[in-house]
Amino acid sequence: MTVIDLNSDVGESFGNWHMGDDAAVFRSVSSANVACGFHAGDPGTMAQTCRDAVAAGVTVGAHVAYRDLAGFGRRFLDCSPTELADDVLYQMGALEAMARSAGATIEYVKPHGALYNTIVHHEAHAQAVVDAVKAFGGDLPLLLLPGSVALDKAERAGLRGVAEAFADRGYTPEGTLVSRREQGAVLHDAAQVTERMIRLAEHGTLTAVDGSTVHLAAESICVHGDTPGSAAMAAEVRAGLERAGITIRSFV
Amino acid sequence: MTVIDLNSDVGESFGNWHMGDDAAVFRSVSSANVACGFHAGDPGTMAQTCRDAVAAGVTVGAHVAYRDLAGFGRRFLDCSPTELADDVLYQMGALEAMARSAGATIEYVKPHGALYNTIVHHEAHAQAVVDAVKAFGGDLPLLLLPGSVALDKAERAGLRGVAEAFADRGYTPEGTLVSRREQGAVLHDAAQVTERMIRLAEHGTLTAVDGSTVHLAAESICVHGDTPGSAAMAAEVRAGLERAGITIRSFV
Amino acid sequence: MTVIDLNSDVGESFGNWHMGDDAAVFRSVSSANVACGFHAGDPGTMAQTCRDAVAAGVTVGAHVAYRDLAGFGRRFLDCSPTELADDVLYQMGALEAMARSAGATIEYVKPHGALYNTIVHHEAHAQAVVDAVKAFGGDLPLLLLPGSVALDKAERAGLRGVAEAFADRGYTPEGTLVSRREQGAVLHDAAQVTERMIRLAEHGTLTAVDGSTVHLAAESICVHGDTPGSAAMAAEVRAGLERAGITIRSFV
Amino acid sequence: MTVIDLNSDVGESFGNWHMGDDAAVFRSVSSANVACGFHAGDPGTMAQTCRDAVAAGVTVGAHVAYRDLAGFGRRFLDCSPTELADDVLYQMGALEAMARSAGATIEYVKPHGALYNTIVHHEAHAQAVVDAVKAFGGDLPLLLLPGSVALDKAERAGLRGVAEAFADRGYTPEGTLVSRREQGAVLHDAAQVTERMIRLAEHGTLTAVDGSTVHLAAESICVHGDTPGSAAMAAEVRAGLERAGITIRSFV
Repeated sequence: MTVIDLNSDVGESFGNWHMGDDAAVFRSVSSANVACGFHAGDPGTMAQTCRDAVAAGVTVGAHVAYRDLAGFGRRFLDCSPTELADDVLYQMGALEAMARSAGATIEYVKPHGALYNTIVHHEAHAQAVVDAVKAFGGDLPLLLLPGSVALDKAERAGLRGVAEAFADRGYTPEGTLVSRREQGAVLHDAAQVTERMIRLAEHGTLTAVDGSTVHLAAESICVHGDTPGSAAMAAEVRAGLERAGITIRSFV
Repeated sequence: MTVIDLNSDVGESFGNWHMGDDAAVFRSVSSANVACGFHAGDPGTMAQTCRDAVAAGVTVGAHVAYRDLAGFGRRFLDCSPTELADDVLYQMGALEAMARSAGATIEYVKPHGALYNTIVHHEAHAQAVVDAVKAFGGDLPLLLLPGSVALDKAERAGLRGVAEAFADRGYTPEGTLVSRREQGAVLHDAAQVTERMIRLAEHGTLTAVDGSTVHLAAESICVHGDTPGSAAMAAEVRAGLERAGITIRSFV
Repeated sequence: MTVIDLNSDVGESFGNWHMGDDAAVFRSVSSANVACGFHAGDPGTMAQTCRDAVAAGVTVGAHVAYRDLAGFGRRFLDCSPTELADDVLYQMGALEAMARSAGATIEYVKPHGALYNTIVHHEAHAQAVVDAVKAFGGDLPLLLLPGSVALDKAERAGLRGVAEAFADRGYTPEGTLVSRREQGAVLHDAAQVTERMIRLAEHGTLTAVDGSTVHLAAESICVHGDTPGSAAMAAEVRAGLERAGITIRSFV
Repeated sequence: MTVIDLNSDVGESFGNWHMGDDAAVFRSVSSANVACGFHAGDPGTMAQTCRDAVAAGVTVGAHVAYRDLAGFGRRFLDCSPTELADDVLYQMGALEAMARSAGATIEYVKPHGALYNTIVHHEAHAQAVVDAVKAFGGDLPLLLLPGSVALDKAERAGLRGVAEAFADRGYTPEGTLVSRREQGAVLHDAAQVTERMIRLAEHGTLTAVDGSTVHLAAESICVHGDTPGSAAMAAEVRAGLERAGITIRSFV
């Protein structure tokens, strides 16, 4: 039986500001990356998002970030590794309390935005995230980019590193994402995306931007819900995977 | 055997700003009210404070507050009960993660500043704090002012409400604190304070500002460490209680 | 010639979070209440909003608020009058710099949300807002609710107090707003609203919720742009006023 | 007549947290770098600091920073140049309003912490700071490290760049600061520091860490007041300069 996880960012509203169609996302995914208050997600939003995840039968993960509300966590912040580890641990604990109050528990961690991209190569920040997950206890898996330095560090620390693919992104022959400044970075055709993800789930391969075949051992596929188009594409990817007989299930 | 708890606020630094002589406080108290990031206490400070509490054998409590860094949580914020409950739960979870990483766990909750004073009479905010403590799980005790509406609500919800006295404050004949705008509100003589606290621990009584005797069923005494004088007074109160054969022990 | 001002809140996005159809609002109003960073409005949004106001020929006002991003400035914050005055002055100065960089200047002040409502009756906070406007220099007018204590205080300080009406709200026979908990609080029929505002502009009267006539000496009408419906209603009110030969012009 | 400016950071308290002996600093310096709320300095502190500067006859400068209260502005934040320019402009406007209410005006700009160090080499952030100062109007001078890329950019934009020396720091033969990780980075002997600063003011030279002579065309000397020792050293440097017949005067 072929199995794959679908994950997406949710709970990114803050106070009076709404973001994303979480209701649509919860119908498509098996894992929800819930914002923890440092880049998005006030406590009320976090609590409601956890209740929605429970209602939808979706696994809750902590979407941890640099402390940067004004920048939505998309800006590298040169904090010390200790500061970063403590900030990540704080966010995990906060979300855990909200999750528990909803009858759930956090089951994985996914770094957000600039933190996600930074720990692909930044050894000290990668280690800090791993340290925080270890300090939290329970040895939760970390959802990361294939090739991320953080994957190595997670595994060396006895954590499970889970690699993910991006449904709507083009790949280089080396298996990295095509830069957003180049052609083919973002895919808009839901049918094409769905076909690619079926192949990825079944064979672990993707067609790169130059037509070559790339091997990608991803256990999860990241989809989006922050635009009407992305939420619709997420729904179509899920439906297509299911039609192909693939089981959508959290990796935990 | 006569037993009493001594509690104090700690971990009130934030980033580059230092506050309080926590090292001195940890030598005097049995319970530490640790700031959780909403009025004071960044994640690094919280982690270090929990490690210090463990090293000193002091019980960790969550010092939860309105979201008000600029006002140090000393200003009433007219949030909705749901917002407040979620904010309190968030803070508890965050501190719990820091405490666990230090080998501790939070064992009680004490509302801070304006929240502490508001829930003496504000039914909805009192209930919100109680709801958060219930939602957190484990039915932690709440440390409160005698006569606080929150004490009733805690007990009705199956939580233990623990009343505290203030070592350096004068009391009215009715057992309430003398207003800071009136004479006798704050006591500065450590010997007198110590004597009063011995009597309180042994007999549950205090001499009010008018000379009458007040009954106060306090299980804990609040001392301070935010000025050199207050930390010294805390040390003297502890030493005096011990000389009188009273055991200093957390109420949990 | 009959003249009236139309004002609306703009610039209420923050970082990655978008709010309101400001482009539509700028086509309808003569005065723009620009958020200053304490309840909404990051510096980049403020700068862009000022440029948009200049392009649309709309007067810029400072929409000052309690320091409460998480609550969008809709929650009373019991700060001291000095704290409030300094917070308001800070916001005015910040917006002034953004306005100047866009070729504009702030020409009036409108308190936002909970601050707007609080200073209807809260003497000390009303005085603090007036003090801040005086301290800023230039004696800018204050846009307020008719009957607000702040109107008196403004005038006693030599500032011009400008009363406003709310296009989409019902009024009591006493000229106050019908509470949102009661029937008739919010009007949804754009044609009816337009007719009411024409009468208000021409005769200074409104039909109250009980059918009686209310006198309201408003120099400005507040419209909204935070929902598609409200932006459309604002456009219709403006078009209706203009068809009736009324000039839409800032009160400054 | 030999003239030199002495500058120091002030107004770095925030809310209930106090930092630095500003009263002592105001007795020693001719220019005050006033925090603007992004790394330190709440509006009330800013207003009081401006009043204190006026009372002491000290020039007010805007100490602008990355948006990072938790890190005191000491951490690089990878914001976009546009975000940075708007953030700097916002801070300048906010401080200008506080200064005006105290009878002063901001007369120069000094970037703080990580921003100060980043724009030594980061072209886009250096340009953003210059752009903000230009957008503010009045072409205020920028106080910077000698050799900073921002000095070039300031001058190319028609702004005056003012280079400063650090009283208590060692210098390399190339005229850069000795890294804090190396010996000789920080000088603790007030008499030696004073002698060095007299020579700098009179001859524009310093003895480098290897004994060689370094030319440094500094118009200002930075002293500190955040520790008792540093405030005392600032007083001694000023007294020594005056005894040597050097006039302490702002560079503006």
